[in-house]
Amino acid sequence: MTLGQNLLRPRSVALVGASDDPGKTGGRPLAFLRRAGFSGAIYPVNPRRETVQGQTSYPAIDALPERPDHAFILAPTDGVLDAVAACVARGVPVLTVLAGGFAEAGESGLAREAELRRILAGSGTRLLGPNSIGIVNVTTGLSLTANGAFAEPEIQKGGIFVASHSGSMIGAILSRGLAKGLGFAGFVSTGSEVDLSLGEICEATLDDPAIGTYALFLESIAHGAAIRRFALAAAERGKPVIAYKLGRSRQAAELAQSHTGAIAGEDGIADAFLKDCGIARVETLDGLIEGLPLLAKLGVPTAPRRPRTAVVTTTGGGAAMVVDQLGLRGVEAVVPSEETMARLAARGVAAPRGRILDLTLAGTRPAIMSAALETLLDAPEFDLVVAVAGSSARFQPELLVPAIAGAARQAERPLVVFAAPEAPEALRSFAEAGVPCFHTPEACGDAVAAIFGRRAPKGLGAEAPSRGTARQLDEAEGYAVLARLGVPVAPHAVAGIEATASPVAYPVAVKLLSADVLHKTELGGVVLGIADDGAFRSAVADIVGAVGKAAPGLVVERLLVQSMAKGIGEVLLSVHRDPDAGAVVMLAAGGILAEIHEDRSLRLAPVSREEALAMIDEVKALRALAGFRGRPKGDLGALADAIVAISQAGPEIVEAEINPLLVRRENEGVVAVDAVVRLMEEGR
Amino acid sequence: MTLGQNLLRPRSVALVGASDDPGKTGGRPLAFLRRAGFSGAIYPVNPRRETVQGQTSYPAIDALPERPDHAFILAPTDGVLDAVAACVARGVPVLTVLAGGFAEAGESGLAREAELRRILAGSGTRLLGPNSIGIVNVTTGLSLTANGAFAEPEIQKGGIFVASHSGSMIGAILSRGLAKGLGFAGFVSTGSEVDLSLGEICEATLDDPAIGTYALFLESIAHGAAIRRFALAAAERGKPVIAYKLGRSRQAAELAQSHTGAIAGEDGIADAFLKDCGIARVETLDGLIEGLPLLAKLGVPTAPRRPRTAVVTTTGGGAAMVVDQLGLRGVEAVVPSEETMARLAARGVAAPRGRILDLTLAGTRPAIMSAALETLLDAPEFDLVVAVAGSSARFQPELLVPAIAGAARQAERPLVVFAAPEAPEALRSFAEAGVPCFHTPEACGDAVAAIFGRRAPKGLGAEAPSRGTARQLDEAEGYAVLARLGVPVAPHAVAGIEATASPVAYPVAVKLLSADVLHKTELGGVVLGIADDGAFRSAVADIVGAVGKAAPGLVVERLLVQSMAKGIGEVLLSVHRDPDAGAVVMLAAGGILAEIHEDRSLRLAPVSREEALAMIDEVKALRALAGFRGRPKGDLGALADAIVAISQAGPEIVEAEINPLLVRRENEGVVAVDAVVRLMEEGR
Repeated sequence: MTLGQNLLRPRSVALVGASDDPGKTGGRPLAFLRRAGFSGAIYPVNPRRETVQGQTSYPAIDALPERPDHAFILAPTDGVLDAVAACVARGVPVLTVLAGGFAEAGESGLAREAELRRILAGSGTRLLGPNSIGIVNVTTGLSLTANGAFAEPEIQKGGIFVASHSGSMIGAILSRGLAKGLGFAGFVSTGSEVDLSLGEICEATLDDPAIGTYALFLESIAHGAAIRRFALAAAERGKPVIAYKLGRSRQAAELAQSHTGAIAGEDGIADAFLKDCGIARVETLDGLIEGLPLLAKLGVPTAPRRPRTAVVTTTGGGAAMVVDQLGLRGVEAVVPSEETMARLAARGVAAPRGRILDLTLAGTRPAIMSAALETLLDAPEFDLVVAVAGSSARFQPELLVPAIAGAARQAERPLVVFAAPEAPEALRSFAEAGVPCFHTPEACGDAVAAIFGRRAPKGLGAEAPSRGTARQLDEAEGYAVLARLGVPVAPHAVAGIEATASPVAYPVAVKLLSADVLHKTELGGVVLGIADDGAFRSAVADIVGAVGKAAPGLVVERLLVQSMAKGIGEVLLSVHRDPDAGAVVMLAAGGILAEIHEDRSLRLAPVSREEALAMIDEVKALRALAGFRGRPKGDLGALADAIVAISQAGPEIVEAEINPLLVRRENEGVVAVDAVVRLMEEGR
Repeated sequence: MTLGQNLLRPRSVALVGASDDPGKTGGRPLAFLRRAGFSGAIYPVNPRRETVQGQTSYPAIDALPERPDHAFILAPTDGVLDAVAACVARGVPVLTVLAGGFAEAGESGLAREAELRRILAGSGTRLLGPNSIGIVNVTTGLSLTANGAFAEPEIQKGGIFVASHSGSMIGAILSRGLAKGLGFAGFVSTGSEVDLSLGEICEATLDDPAIGTYALFLESIAHGAAIRRFALAAAERGKPVIAYKLGRSRQAAELAQSHTGAIAGEDGIADAFLKDCGIARVETLDGLIEGLPLLAKLGVPTAPRRPRTAVVTTTGGGAAMVVDQLGLRGVEAVVPSEETMARLAARGVAAPRGRILDLTLAGTRPAIMSAALETLLDAPEFDLVVAVAGSSARFQPELLVPAIAGAARQAERPLVVFAAPEAPEALRSFAEAGVPCFHTPEACGDAVAAIFGRRAPKGLGAEAPSRGTARQLDEAEGYAVLARLGVPVAPHAVAGIEATASPVAYPVAVKLLSADVLHKTELGGVVLGIADDGAFRSAVADIVGAVGKAAPGLVVERLLVQSMAKGIGEVLLSVHRDPDAGAVVMLAAGGILAEIHEDRSLRLAPVSREEALAMIDEVKALRALAGFRGRPKGDLGALADAIVAISQAGPEIVEAEINPLLVRRENEGVVAVDAVVRLMEEGR
């Protein structure tokens, strides 16, 4: 049995601490398993009872007639460690632990968690949780959960697997999905991820044939390497992934820290991470759920697109809302070609030409809607057709849904629906017919932009050495690292304080050279624009004097002498190793305004030249270097080369930051004039 | 009878062109009126029939036994003008016209609209439409509409009046509202606004006692003056207003133009307009609908607030979503005080202290939720309490809703609910209990921020002269206007081209002075940094030469000589008369990056000093002048004074733009160094 089988398709399960009361948390799993028709063996373990809910109860895990494939530990916090230890001793391959009270619960919890890790260490037992509300396989009836949400009378089977950091959100996603006619393959609440993390669990389920798509509810990108491995493997299996991640606002990002004990990655890094994993990141809760059928239709990502979209409607105001929401996300509602208009007319669809094909005048009959949709789905100028339904979605779903679903079925291109009125019946019917349907214009715009905008997932880079000490290089050593990577650096040389003339051609800058000083300007350790030997000597004297005064403990021995360089713009370019996301490349506009506007672009390393150009495109201030309002163009090609170069930084480079990298005019290149590099030295 | 009474409470209505088939558009109003139990007289007018739907049909409006208070013209486009003329001749005070085909339909439509205006001119008849789907008074059963959405079996009565530019959106708002348990007073679709505009109609309904709140669906802010008068009067009557406006994206803003024929105001101006009208502008469709109970609870706006918010929950993930959405809109989830935590503990609510009060450990029993809510609603550190409900909202609404509604009822402070699962029954029960309840975290954050963020509506300023010609002043005349308003301008004097020395102290700038030239720099008409008489003379010669070459037709006679001034920052400050919004003041950061980032703030004139400071706060780049990262502070007080001053521009000032206005260090003031002013000259 593989990990995935033990998790999702165990032949036998033990319920350790099962309660006789099916209404109680500890009693629910047995009730749910029975009702869902789980066909494997179920072993309640409860030393205080002979029977549990009418079924034989075993006094201990050792007393079971066989070693179960999976044990669900329902014991309260205090009893968890003993129960886990017993299961480990018995060789149970997978445990799920319900109780909380570990790392998130302060000092005593930390000690408890350490002990839990100790018990697991070296054993063959893997653990889901603690603080996991359980795992559910809808296909096999494995309702191994204490989640009250699984009191749902019937859960429709389908291809969606939901993995969530938050246990309570499972119920929200389940009920919202059911109301929209979605079918599910399974659910897992990953809890505190002391052993198995979300990415690892999802990866283990990839071979399950019932699963077609993954929906993730993330509090952070903790254990990012596993998420990335899962995303890559999922793409290889043709299984697309969509995610809602908390923490777009600062106050919610802080929350993730206290809530799960995970270090909340800054949201910008998490966003770049998810996108470079080929995961569609939505910004609305309903976009996560209602986007799933479109995700299934489009499959795994290849290259990001802003779909050229046709909008057809019987409600002008409703369609305008969708056009607005698409436009806010860079998706254009395209005017049909003259040829398409002629084809529409030939099929009796008479509507004015525009961004919205409004059928109000042409008649709102289903046959007209069908004809319009079939024509637009066939027209080469579109990647996507959005049908915006008006009151017929509410009052005549039996006519409208077949008309739209029929057109969608025949087409290769995707069709999605937004229903302007409250139309639950139509939404469910559309979902049953496999037509993506949205209840709000916001979720529609969000899901369309996120799903079409997915990038192909990036291959895994080399992992950083797990042990070692980071050492900051001095500026000259830093330049050497950058130059080896292929980043142009300003001509420079190292000089002693006894030097009387510049070793490089004037004009030059002279700077204090020391790996121990980060803010040399503030110590008076920098003099710029030195034109001759006389100025050079006084600059050296000034630096020695100023630094000696500002930092009396610091011995000034060496100086960096650097050619003065000019650009027409400047950027900050860096690569650093994020503990969750791995190596991340950042390009930011230089200067204070860029900082105020948070004007930057992030990608996982390594970055291709095409990606580098996309990064340049994302930094708004760099439009000023792209010929904006007749201004001189900067050498953005050379900037792209520098981004590619720094992104090749090996795993030993903990951080390399060039600030600034000067951008010169077209064909004149870029040049680094200040840099900080930190290297990991193994074994130290 | 007032306009409002004829619109909403007519004693008698005529249905001109009524059809015998209640399923057809022209037959619906009679069927709807009967079903809704309208108690006034109904007169079908149809010359081709003796009876309409079993009721006596009249051959013409003249044949009616009395002059009806309101006639609904159901005739097709071609028959509208005759029908309107007959009604005008009969002296019918209010007409509603269903058919489209006027200004929005090209040339023939424009001619038809002109004729319609001619027929109405000078008569006592007012017109709703054309292209209006009708008007509905739920209280009196006046279902004077052809909107299929009013086939709803039952429309719950309540205080909400919906006014929409879009006819089809009426049905969407109605059905979504009903699903959420809202009750309505009435609906109006304002169509093409050839006569009565949305603002005028809403203003006319203000005295209707059944109406408590207004929900607007806007395609533009056309006829803004009427919207503003309505908003002011509504605030005086204690009736709050909320609006969804299309056109946040450029492609949707363009749409409004073609859709209604109205000039689409730029969305930024529309946004400032609505906010200065004291209208809550939401960004989500469901925020418009689900926000209504909170709007009713808070009443009319006083001063904008970012409510200090308590979040209490039984679902950590669900609450975190709300905290995230609030945080994105600047609303803080506040940690309860130690005192409040003690009070909670005393009432048996044991939860860890944090931004979210998570009751999962304390027990999810309704009594615990009640106790927590009562305590938080009573705590002085909060303006708002958000209860985030988990699975109990779906599975036990009968326990949860009374617990929450009971706490809300006793409290002065508002309480809102977000239900994480699909919980339609709970949502309806909350609405019936008057508790604002949201289905998505996005609508919750949106509505809370928009409704609490409302400004007090601004008094009406003087209206611009309706006739006249705008004349551009030369730079010296422009400075005179600015100086009279109280905006500091750089010392300057006018000189002839024969001048041989500067009339103001050196260093100076010399510029071509002509009201006919907007881009003097590009003609070579500006020389900066002139230090002495010699440089002055050669600058004059250079300008005469360069301008003579670049614009041979232009005679250079006069020059503006201006003291060179320096600042540590620069802004663009302007006031202009927008055709829809009226006088609008804009403050924008100077320079190309500000343009790229669209970094600016807008307000309706006049602007108070407090508002001016708020505007400065909204322009992100100005943080660089507020002591950001230890940089020198700019004289933002003087900048605020200049904003106030320019905002006092009289109605004759069509436009005044200072670019740049230099901002000096603290206590050193601001100074205008270039300006364009256009004046309206009456009677020309």
